[in-house]
Amino acid sequence: MFRKLMTFEEAQKTIQSHFKLQALGEEEAVLLEAYNRVLAEDVVSTLDIPPFSRSTVDGYAVKAEETFGADENQPATLKVNGVVGVGEQPQVKVGKGEAAEIVTGAPIPEGSDAVVMVEDTEREDSELHVFSAVTSNENVMKRGSDIKKGEAVLKKGLLLGSSEIGVLAALGLTKVKVSKIPMVAVLSTGGEVTEAGKPLPSGKIYDINAYSISTAVIESGGKPVYFGVVPDDKSELSKALHSALASADMVITSGGVSVGPRDYTPQIVDSLGKPGIVVYGIAVKPGKPTTVGFVGDKPVFSLPGHPTSALLVFYLLARPLIQQLAGRPVAVMKTVRAAAGSRMFSAKGRRTFVMVKLMFDKSCRLIAEPIESGASGAITTLEKADGFVEIPENQQFVDADEEVAVSLFRNVPGKV
Amino acid sequence: MFRKLMTFEEAQKTIQSHFKLQALGEEEAVLLEAYNRVLAEDVVSTLDIPPFSRSTVDGYAVKAEETFGADENQPATLKVNGVVGVGEQPQVKVGKGEAAEIVTGAPIPEGSDAVVMVEDTEREDSELHVFSAVTSNENVMKRGSDIKKGEAVLKKGLLLGSSEIGVLAALGLTKVKVSKIPMVAVLSTGGEVTEAGKPLPSGKIYDINAYSISTAVIESGGKPVYFGVVPDDKSELSKALHSALASADMVITSGGVSVGPRDYTPQIVDSLGKPGIVVYGIAVKPGKPTTVGFVGDKPVFSLPGHPTSALLVFYLLARPLIQQLAGRPVAVMKTVRAAAGSRMFSAKGRRTFVMVKLMFDKSCRLIAEPIESGASGAITTLEKADGFVEIPENQQFVDADEEVAVSLFRNVPGKV
Repeated sequence: MFRKLMTFEEAQKTIQSHFKLQALGEEEAVLLEAYNRVLAEDVVSTLDIPPFSRSTVDGYAVKAEETFGADENQPATLKVNGVVGVGEQPQVKVGKGEAAEIVTGAPIPEGSDAVVMVEDTEREDSELHVFSAVTSNENVMKRGSDIKKGEAVLKKGLLLGSSEIGVLAALGLTKVKVSKIPMVAVLSTGGEVTEAGKPLPSGKIYDINAYSISTAVIESGGKPVYFGVVPDDKSELSKALHSALASADMVITSGGVSVGPRDYTPQIVDSLGKPGIVVYGIAVKPGKPTTVGFVGDKPVFSLPGHPTSALLVFYLLARPLIQQLAGRPVAVMKTVRAAAGSRMFSAKGRRTFVMVKLMFDKSCRLIAEPIESGASGAITTLEKADGFVEIPENQQFVDADEEVAVSLFRNVPGKV
Repeated sequence: MFRKLMTFEEAQKTIQSHFKLQALGEEEAVLLEAYNRVLAEDVVSTLDIPPFSRSTVDGYAVKAEETFGADENQPATLKVNGVVGVGEQPQVKVGKGEAAEIVTGAPIPEGSDAVVMVEDTEREDSELHVFSAVTSNENVMKRGSDIKKGEAVLKKGLLLGSSEIGVLAALGLTKVKVSKIPMVAVLSTGGEVTEAGKPLPSGKIYDINAYSISTAVIESGGKPVYFGVVPDDKSELSKALHSALASADMVITSGGVSVGPRDYTPQIVDSLGKPGIVVYGIAVKPGKPTTVGFVGDKPVFSLPGHPTSALLVFYLLARPLIQQLAGRPVAVMKTVRAAAGSRMFSAKGRRTFVMVKLMFDKSCRLIAEPIESGASGAITTLEKADGFVEIPENQQFVDADEEVAVSLFRNVPGKV
């Protein structure tokens, strides 16, 4: 079955046109567990915040008008008739000619409408001299001035960080509705891979992808359903894909999508439901054998077996779908500008992604040094690469010293 | 008890001089759980990778010397005596004048030392014409060329991301030793706060800090031990601090460290062990009432009650200690350059941190607009602030339009 390779843009468009973004539903989370989750409801305050008018300073609660005109030479004189502490309902009322001692955060007592700072007063027993006038509401935080009862405080779709969790706590909430986390089944195929922890038969290597892709799923806001290595047998693979589709919102396989007779994944995906495979190979390097299908609304990505290629295609094409399912903003990869450390060649007619390592040269210029790996399949490439340089289809190479944009796989502490 | 306020730098130095960085020990984690943890051992490979010499192309395994001189006009002719597939021990040996069909990733059969690409051959039944010479080891990835048995692959102290987990899987490991996560007890004090979920008595407000600080602890690589709100009573607070020190590696309280007679926390910390309180107040705004002590080697931070101030001081002083205990790199806060949206004033003689919101003006200049909150204690400040501008002790203000560095609390998607 021969089909023309799609360009990278065609593949992106085809995937998005088949992808129906449907809500995965919501669940309730206790507040500390809601951290780093996506809010699934508009949160409306059921109380005024602050719930009462509070003093913002230590001093005396007064009727403002009784201080008008007061200064160093002509202090207003009032009688202190009580104390208001924090956390208590005031037991005192401020009548004509009276004042009440008050601390920061305590409720303003009835009859008063302002607070004079303690620095602007002098007191002898219950007699208080006020040396500075205050206006109505001065040094008072009015009830509801921060948040009004009925006000929409946090919007659905917000990612909950420390500050947002703090705001929810302020509203007295202990639980909140959050979007469900998309479940992503991850499985490896191919006759040459064995699962870590098992003895390594002659001619085989340990599987990397089920682990590296699973952790990349976590990083993207999804929850991996680890299927490990599926034996290289059509009926076993068919069973595994069936079960993966039943238990997850999205499936990612790797390996087994090259050209041999044992390349079962696309046929099985086609047989499991409509529309089946929609992308048969992409004109990119690495990542050419990638196929993408949908069974009903569930995306099925089949990535190449080569670990670096698999992770690269995951970042470029699969991650945005996980982020959309999770209700998160689709992350744009961060880039840094660097000088090409040596000439980087592109594959003819294919969008080429060259893995690079970043380093500073003697004159402290940031250099993007290509990592030779390509066909060799070196697994350490994965760990050495800080990011990649993208070379468009119509360009043959990037010359040494040319400025390039490096898309970063991670933050590079101490490096960039 | 009056003590001179320390400057911000003095406080930082005092804290670091009392802080004995001791390893919290290690624990074993299965590979998927090791994601985003700190490696606690040097990982040495127990196998060669690849474990056998593999073909990097589809083609024919040959003795390189038998192709020397071959070209389009004078092909070398060999006899195909078998097939080597992936994942199997080759059943075939390549003798004089022979070749074996081989696919990418399959082991190089005995007797051969190079692979000719299928594109450079023509085959009739078992007769193979080779149109291009190969040198010894061409298209072969030699056993151990990626990682040698006995080689140190990943170093102790490394933060494990997707790529590193992939490398560990390649080595056949299913478990790895990781550093223990520091436990940080978080408790709120102060007579005015009530725990979320309980009815709100008159004169009280819901506590924010135990939640916002707990999630900030998670963010920093620690595990919060949530103690919630401790009643405003000396013996209750003493019991809670005792239990917090027993169950955690570090303690963070907030509230109750102002000036009133009910300010028990410092005395209790002093009574619980040496050296006791080492920082009594810092010349910063906000955050002046912060105290820091050590009971044995365990740090005890007492942050202000105001939620934004508490979180700010946490970021500035407590977070680096959690990161060090966790074996993580101490994160430097990311900054962006912006123009001050209006004049920002500093507090006389105190390092001032002005909370700001970032926005673009009509000409797409990034503007840092100060958020007025200060004394008012508005809890929404917490959620509105994108970061802060630092004004040194000897500077009175930052003028409108002056360029400032904004330290970011978080990434601001779509904004910066």
